[in-house]
Amino acid sequence: MAKKIVITASLTGVLATRAQCPYIPYTPEEIALEGKRAVDAGASILHIHARQESGMPAYDINTYRRIGEEVRKLVPNAIINYSTGAVGISNEERIHHVTALKPEMAALNMSSMNYAIYSPKTKEFYHDFVFQNPFKDIQFFLEKMKAAGTIPEMEVFDNGHINNASPLIDMGLLQKPYVFSFVMGVLGGIPISTQNLLHQAASVPPGSHWQVIGIGRKQWQLIAAAITIDGNVRAGLEDNFYLPSGEMAKSNGELIDATAKMVRMLGREVASIEETRAILNLKPAHEAALPA
Amino acid sequence: MAKKIVITASLTGVLATRAQCPYIPYTPEEIALEGKRAVDAGASILHIHARQESGMPAYDINTYRRIGEEVRKLVPNAIINYSTGAVGISNEERIHHVTALKPEMAALNMSSMNYAIYSPKTKEFYHDFVFQNPFKDIQFFLEKMKAAGTIPEMEVFDNGHINNASPLIDMGLLQKPYVFSFVMGVLGGIPISTQNLLHQAASVPPGSHWQVIGIGRKQWQLIAAAITIDGNVRAGLEDNFYLPSGEMAKSNGELIDATAKMVRMLGREVASIEETRAILNLKPAHEAALPA
Amino acid sequence: MAKKIVITASLTGVLATRAQCPYIPYTPEEIALEGKRAVDAGASILHIHARQESGMPAYDINTYRRIGEEVRKLVPNAIINYSTGAVGISNEERIHHVTALKPEMAALNMSSMNYAIYSPKTKEFYHDFVFQNPFKDIQFFLEKMKAAGTIPEMEVFDNGHINNASPLIDMGLLQKPYVFSFVMGVLGGIPISTQNLLHQAASVPPGSHWQVIGIGRKQWQLIAAAITIDGNVRAGLEDNFYLPSGEMAKSNGELIDATAKMVRMLGREVASIEETRAILNLKPAHEAALPA
Amino acid sequence: MAKKIVITASLTGVLATRAQCPYIPYTPEEIALEGKRAVDAGASILHIHARQESGMPAYDINTYRRIGEEVRKLVPNAIINYSTGAVGISNEERIHHVTALKPEMAALNMSSMNYAIYSPKTKEFYHDFVFQNPFKDIQFFLEKMKAAGTIPEMEVFDNGHINNASPLIDMGLLQKPYVFSFVMGVLGGIPISTQNLLHQAASVPPGSHWQVIGIGRKQWQLIAAAITIDGNVRAGLEDNFYLPSGEMAKSNGELIDATAKMVRMLGREVASIEETRAILNLKPAHEAALPA
Repeated sequence: MAKKIVITASLTGVLATRAQCPYIPYTPEEIALEGKRAVDAGASILHIHARQESGMPAYDINTYRRIGEEVRKLVPNAIINYSTGAVGISNEERIHHVTALKPEMAALNMSSMNYAIYSPKTKEFYHDFVFQNPFKDIQFFLEKMKAAGTIPEMEVFDNGHINNASPLIDMGLLQKPYVFSFVMGVLGGIPISTQNLLHQAASVPPGSHWQVIGIGRKQWQLIAAAITIDGNVRAGLEDNFYLPSGEMAKSNGELIDATAKMVRMLGREVASIEETRAILNLKPAHEAALPA
Repeated sequence: MAKKIVITASLTGVLATRAQCPYIPYTPEEIALEGKRAVDAGASILHIHARQESGMPAYDINTYRRIGEEVRKLVPNAIINYSTGAVGISNEERIHHVTALKPEMAALNMSSMNYAIYSPKTKEFYHDFVFQNPFKDIQFFLEKMKAAGTIPEMEVFDNGHINNASPLIDMGLLQKPYVFSFVMGVLGGIPISTQNLLHQAASVPPGSHWQVIGIGRKQWQLIAAAITIDGNVRAGLEDNFYLPSGEMAKSNGELIDATAKMVRMLGREVASIEETRAILNLKPAHEAALPA
Repeated sequence: MAKKIVITASLTGVLATRAQCPYIPYTPEEIALEGKRAVDAGASILHIHARQESGMPAYDINTYRRIGEEVRKLVPNAIINYSTGAVGISNEERIHHVTALKPEMAALNMSSMNYAIYSPKTKEFYHDFVFQNPFKDIQFFLEKMKAAGTIPEMEVFDNGHINNASPLIDMGLLQKPYVFSFVMGVLGGIPISTQNLLHQAASVPPGSHWQVIGIGRKQWQLIAAAITIDGNVRAGLEDNFYLPSGEMAKSNGELIDATAKMVRMLGREVASIEETRAILNLKPAHEAALPA
Repeated sequence: MAKKIVITASLTGVLATRAQCPYIPYTPEEIALEGKRAVDAGASILHIHARQESGMPAYDINTYRRIGEEVRKLVPNAIINYSTGAVGISNEERIHHVTALKPEMAALNMSSMNYAIYSPKTKEFYHDFVFQNPFKDIQFFLEKMKAAGTIPEMEVFDNGHINNASPLIDMGLLQKPYVFSFVMGVLGGIPISTQNLLHQAASVPPGSHWQVIGIGRKQWQLIAAAITIDGNVRAGLEDNFYLPSGEMAKSNGELIDATAKMVRMLGREVASIEETRAILNLKPAHEAALPA
């Protein structure tokens, strides 16, 4: 039987703007519409950052609540995954929408690291940031997620970050399946290569579920490689605007459609939302009191 | 600059018949026409077995000469690669067309092995063959190829087979670039997996050029994985009849076109015939006294 | 808790002679004495080939029976593992001592391959042999071992040979734990390297137990590498005469002692015979009706 | 020819105290004496932290100068490698002894990371620190080292940290051979395993020289695994107090002696100081105007 591959759609992010790609959704309604397109094309998990009307990031509970409501109208059973990544706000603010809204999943950064951008042309770093996530912060977020019944999607940018889950498992803060996202291609973290992807996949503890997140156009090669080893994949306008053909996607739906085609082309099948729920040990949608 | 990927087309083979796939070419004219379609779609090397009108394998020089003549009419500068694999005929007969016709490349089996087919349904082996290629035979073929100025394409079915090149390099029978084909998925040899492909790729000596050959529909996942690590690829009706979509290909051209699309989708470019000549250290077509 | 490492002693083999190493045991009494020394130093499995008084190989049941009797006198609970590898005799003869004596383990070659020796000095192959083990022979041996209640120790010389177990598992001829020996360093098979060892270890099916067998002095680096990944190891005069210090060993006991020291130096412990019995799912010695 | 393995001795560090191990050197004279013992046993590079008489870390130029003078008296041609790692002092202070004394090598931390200690017994983190090394700091240290003619020994704690060298190579701040130390086993970085070591080794750019640094008793398994893949190794009281036998070492000399024995036991040879100079592209000692 063909392996089922779970597709996550990263609908909007917070860094990219409509100046760069006019199809990025900002408002709850727009995000929900993009979520519908993604689900129709094969996504079962929607990874969502909130934004203000201007496109600037929003961290308030209300915006997140409105997003949840709009998404539920269009795709009642999709699995919602909220971001908790933010710089310049308190840990309480980074997590309060999770505590209040109890989404089924939320993302969690698993380590400190350099997070930089270098230009070979100018020979300069034009972004050079220490992303700080000490264990006490990770522990704090995990306790909040546990209380909310939310599955943490552990974002790991390097090999050692996977092992950072070990003490947290030992403390009882994580349950199987452990859900890892391998973010690859950030300067400061593990680079994009099939060799690195396979090493990450070989490093997760037993009882783990993982997906790959590639930043930029090289994500297609990561997605292809991940599918060949029965891994799960994420695509969406947060990560990359361009289709495998090189054209800019006109919606998250087009990106997810290209991903689903690649899944089938490589001899696997796309997991339905209910199949993904079973894989993640989430309740079926009709039994879950889905938020909003 | 995007890496250039060399595509080889395996036009016909000897095992599959028109009963299985009506598009398999048999006659020199049919093989040449399929070669033209493959080259038009992106192939630069044509791997060719000779056949009789009935589809049965042919090993005589004359049939190979006619194939060469027909191919040259339609694709004057393509790189021709003749098979030397055969069972039940003498080593002299396996290589006499290479000696006589001096093709630019010829395939060479690099080891003995079990070569079997097992049916999980009947719980029986319905093919169980010891493919015998002791070093003295390999040495014999290499000496003939060296005399003919033919590049040996070393077909390796397992990890140790790659290392079999070591004594032959030490004996001066092989020159750089060493050309390896990783055949994967035969029962008795290394199974198809991205992990195995990466290990094979990591095992070749410095100065090597390699491609992957996958048997059956799983070849698409091998081709995708190979491209992501800048490897070269082979497709064609000898290896697999089916397009990534699952439909039977109507020509080698369709299979090579699907391969070329995959190359570009994963951020690489297809090497032209002249680029492949440069990679393999072959003369440009206009300087080469191409056979036939 | 420190991982327990199982040590097998390969007491004598059939190729090496006393002209090369005067400490190689030939007679049943000598083999048993060497077995005692090996067990005293930490071995729990004794891999045994029978020899004639002259040192030539013996394949008759009677010699094997006498070996078993002598071994039992000195080391009543050791696990006996008989060779079944031979060239020039019938399959029935290769296995008849297993059928008759029902040892707890017996070795089994899992594939056909080239088995060669090359001299870089003379630029010649001075051994160039096709070792033939088609599936029908493997199946025959497995059926005999199954009937005898003997655990097959599957000797694999390359990556694909591991996968040869798959159809045999599917046929019900193998039970967990599947016992693999990775033989490395034979020309024709997978070369000795830590990279290759790790790839072999990553290729066994779930529920497997494996050890490494290295031929010649490089075996110490294989043994060290295997221990670091919790693998099991074999040493003994069949495989290598020399201690890590470079001196020729004066007995199998010295080689096993060096191996056991390496196990402890690398933070593991040596499995006792009874611990090995538990690992291999063999009865405790006092419950087993041990042969002879 | 046997591969030559370079041994570095980490003589003292700054964290461990004589309460933990009475043989740790504090004063310049003690450090030099330990350096002599290490060199006599096979070390060619001495990695040195300065300490006050009390054992507390010292960062002043004068202490480093006195250490250099004492070391030169006892081992005139050894390669001196000074630490630049420190917390709570300015970047200028971290590097001023390098600028002033121009040692042949100095260590350099290549990334930010969590640096933590977790107790499975108490289920608590009792050290939870964000080690901050943004690119601008790394660039600053590299410019100072380049001006001093000092080889940076790049300490990498995870896979992505290796890739952090890429922009710095592109900026012209690093020359071949690029010298990497794989530090393994810190919580927050890549864990100790042979698999991880091989992946790190496979990730360095062409023209690199690397060694492994393991923290605690598991370092012996890392050292063994590194030697089997022709890597270089570091040992010393900074990293681990215990000999492979489990006994506490009475000097750095004993630890280096055990390391050198392991090198030879695994079929390699220990590089002499002059051989190490050639490997690192350093001047022979008699041509070098060695500091102090």
